[in-house]
Amino acid sequence: MEERGILIVVSGFSGAGKGTIMKRLLEKYGSDYALSISATTRDPRPGERNGREYFFRSVEEFEKMIAEEELIEYARYVENYYGTPRSYVEEKLAEGKDVILEIEIQGALKVKEKFPDTLLLFVTPPSTEELRNRLTGRGTETEEVIESRMRRASEEAKFMDRYDYLIINDVLENCVEEMHQIIRGEHRRSYRNTDFIEYMKKELKGE
Amino acid sequence: MEERGILIVVSGFSGAGKGTIMKRLLEKYGSDYALSISATTRDPRPGERNGREYFFRSVEEFEKMIAEEELIEYARYVENYYGTPRSYVEEKLAEGKDVILEIEIQGALKVKEKFPDTLLLFVTPPSTEELRNRLTGRGTETEEVIESRMRRASEEAKFMDRYDYLIINDVLENCVEEMHQIIRGEHRRSYRNTDFIEYMKKELKGE
Repeated sequence: MEERGILIVVSGFSGAGKGTIMKRLLEKYGSDYALSISATTRDPRPGERNGREYFFRSVEEFEKMIAEEELIEYARYVENYYGTPRSYVEEKLAEGKDVILEIEIQGALKVKEKFPDTLLLFVTPPSTEELRNRLTGRGTETEEVIESRMRRASEEAKFMDRYDYLIINDVLENCVEEMHQIIRGEHRRSYRNTDFIEYMKKELKGE
Repeated sequence: MEERGILIVVSGFSGAGKGTIMKRLLEKYGSDYALSISATTRDPRPGERNGREYFFRSVEEFEKMIAEEELIEYARYVENYYGTPRSYVEEKLAEGKDVILEIEIQGALKVKEKFPDTLLLFVTPPSTEELRNRLTGRGTETEEVIESRMRRASEEAKFMDRYDYLIINDVLENCVEEMHQIIRGEHRRSYRNTDFIEYMKKELKGE
């Protein structure tokens, strides 16, 4: 019963450690996953390569992708478009890879609405103290930026219960292992195995 | 975030290996689980002890338990009652143990209706050939009994999609590991962590 991959959306508080978790997950279990690559109209930064960090597109190209429904979701921040190209995701899912989209909450909920089988994972530290510590600990942010992130976290917390699972990032290695196990477990959901169930029903009826 | 245990119902085809899986799961992870003990009105067999294999009760006692809603579910087979006493299950759940009920499909669906948070697991071999092999391999059953079990499996297969997860028993050790991981993962479901979500919301609001 080799199956299609699962579309996974990962969101979470800024400072919760999403990036580190994704990196470690792909180091350990890279062959199981594909990280979705976003398309954007912003200019490449030094060192960024087309098709690695982003698919870099002109505004005209991007708006054509919107019009032709080639994006699973998209949003506009400030001057630029960001979106998830459908073709790459579809291709990887068909190969049996679980495709991870790291996007913010509004995008996540849109994806779930369009594709109800999407698995929504929300990454959170084990406490608000820990969240503040991590934001402070970076040492690169002003008090003002930290406060603004905490306020944003407060807004985001309102949507935690719309996610399927909470990924509690306490100890990194445990957290990565747990996330991987949750995803492996999801492959055994009955509703993701209707082909197998139909096969068993049919075979047993023929007995 | 130490939490209440999860009520787990395990069903599956006769010959799927439920008993062996349960035994191995408890050997490996005994401290996480409690196996529910049924009450019955049938006579103890040699070697069976009250409170270990079953709680042995008189018909009067059992019917009193029914009347006082002390049973999560019960059924009558041939001459005897069988049921799941609520008090033992509640006690173990409160201790944080995941409580496993090994019951057949009709009982499983009744439990799920009454307690929607119940996790329903369906144990199946990877194929019907394998199911037949296992039933034949026991060498203790007549062809007639095997055929009757296969027909029963055909009836039971109709309800597979009412279960939350399929537990595919191919290689025992993998299967036990997978089942354990699925259950651990379920502890991270958002809807099983509403206290934590409320705590995060409240704390972040207070920031």
